[in-house]
Amino acid sequence: MLTLPTFDDVTAAASRLAGHAHRTPVLQSRTVNDTLQASVFFKCENFQRMGAFKFRGAFNALSRFDAAQRKAGVVTFSSGNHAQAVALSARLLGMPAVILMPLDAPSAKMQATRGYGAEVVTYDRFTQDREALTREIAAARGMTLIPPYDHPDVIAGQGTAARELFEKVGELDHLFVCLGGGGLLSGSALAARALSPGCKVYGVEPEAGNDGQQSFRSGRIVNIATPKTIADGAQTQHLGAYTFGIIRRDVDDVLTVTDAQLVTAMRFFAERMKMIVEPTGCLGFAAACEAGTKLAGQRVGVIISGGNVDLQRFAELVA
Amino acid sequence: MLTLPTFDDVTAAASRLAGHAHRTPVLQSRTVNDTLQASVFFKCENFQRMGAFKFRGAFNALSRFDAAQRKAGVVTFSSGNHAQAVALSARLLGMPAVILMPLDAPSAKMQATRGYGAEVVTYDRFTQDREALTREIAAARGMTLIPPYDHPDVIAGQGTAARELFEKVGELDHLFVCLGGGGLLSGSALAARALSPGCKVYGVEPEAGNDGQQSFRSGRIVNIATPKTIADGAQTQHLGAYTFGIIRRDVDDVLTVTDAQLVTAMRFFAERMKMIVEPTGCLGFAAACEAGTKLAGQRVGVIISGGNVDLQRFAELVA
Repeated sequence: MLTLPTFDDVTAAASRLAGHAHRTPVLQSRTVNDTLQASVFFKCENFQRMGAFKFRGAFNALSRFDAAQRKAGVVTFSSGNHAQAVALSARLLGMPAVILMPLDAPSAKMQATRGYGAEVVTYDRFTQDREALTREIAAARGMTLIPPYDHPDVIAGQGTAARELFEKVGELDHLFVCLGGGGLLSGSALAARALSPGCKVYGVEPEAGNDGQQSFRSGRIVNIATPKTIADGAQTQHLGAYTFGIIRRDVDDVLTVTDAQLVTAMRFFAERMKMIVEPTGCLGFAAACEAGTKLAGQRVGVIISGGNVDLQRFAELVA
Repeated sequence: MLTLPTFDDVTAAASRLAGHAHRTPVLQSRTVNDTLQASVFFKCENFQRMGAFKFRGAFNALSRFDAAQRKAGVVTFSSGNHAQAVALSARLLGMPAVILMPLDAPSAKMQATRGYGAEVVTYDRFTQDREALTREIAAARGMTLIPPYDHPDVIAGQGTAARELFEKVGELDHLFVCLGGGGLLSGSALAARALSPGCKVYGVEPEAGNDGQQSFRSGRIVNIATPKTIADGAQTQHLGAYTFGIIRRDVDDVLTVTDAQLVTAMRFFAERMKMIVEPTGCLGFAAACEAGTKLAGQRVGVIISGGNVDLQRFAELVA
């Protein structure tokens, strides 16, 4: 039986993050409010350090290492924002970091991760098992593995974003959260249950990768093949044991949106709100737009998860 | 002898704007702070309503109309952000608005201005005198002219952005402000003198359009031909009597940057801070980067004036 993290863990994470993570702004758009006839609050984690909420979970987890763990360092696998989050957190806390990335990961991401001082180990994602490789490195070097989402300290860290949102704007009727592996969603749900008990919490996935919806509705973790979607942060194949444990208990529903809806949301953020949001970061807003007038008269939170999209790619999608 | 607006006028403007203008966020970037070895605070008016600080001045000016003025409405000339600022403010305050725009203004800008309910009157900028035309319309329809920058209520409104910045972060050593006609700069200087008397205030112009620098250094308003620069909001040909009166008294220097420096700043804002900033909005940051290590150990404010740049154009410049 797993011991799930609680809101007290989120609060403890917030103390560890104070002075290290940005308290990101909460923005509103009159156009959105007028269109949905609602009060919509955007929590902008695209303005977080290294461009995504992932810094919160990684820094919280690494902050809890004891002296021996710090000396040996951290190992993880990620081709996305968690790689940079762990690399940056390790640098700030003065410990070594090894990140496993697929051989064919974008060189910009490898460079960014190396730029934070981490050692990047590549693997062939078609022939090698990254989790087994990670465990091998962890054993050989005595390093602690911090996975991208299914870890109590990661979940507690991610929950600090929603905690800040409720602290800033008070209770909400609805909260829309991007869903990949479930770290952000489960952390947000812990914050919502404690600070705004009546708030309905939704996870939002790309339609092509609705393993979370299938899991939520069937009551067991469903595995899928890597989905084809522009939301690269939500290409996870399954939820984790910790994240699913919280999601099935504290989340109200899991919704899906199409890639076309994500592009529409991205363009709106760029044209009207002057923000660069990565495709995965658009999931929550796309679902709120889909809900439309059902939100009329209500107070709605939307968590924007990050803004790490190559500018060339961004231009292709929205310009 | 002109009676120049004062900081009390800025404070009165702030009361009028409360609940109408956004209190825009102040963002920081660790990368910027590490590079300049300074604490840099970005006041993000690109997140203001209609995408630029101009809403502040227009709304403040129109709020002061008496009943007869409101009934007849407002007239102005602008092909830029002031057009949309006046159109939106007039709609919010329930008054008619006529905006003179050149025949060859981008159709997107005309549409946006009409979208706020304003009547757009076009003129040929090669053969017609827009100020004379505006006066004709004002006389024929009894409308009040609110020019883009040289008006006490406009200046006082623009000063509320810097006022919010000082309220939020306390005193600063340096403040970098974009300079076109001088509305934002003169308002900012009023706020700085009252709230942070030791703060050095700089106006920043595109190198190709340094009429403000020439005026500041010669002590009289210098007129130039419309400059060729990507900073379309700073293509003004001369300062105004009110703005120059404040600038010569309260500003410490006027600096210039090249278009290439503006593009570098735009790309940095997009890649690292996930913000869309229009070329004119990059003036202050470009000058701070140029100052470089001279700012070491200091507290620096930068006002980002707006984010209204066509996405296609944005992509061409930064992607």
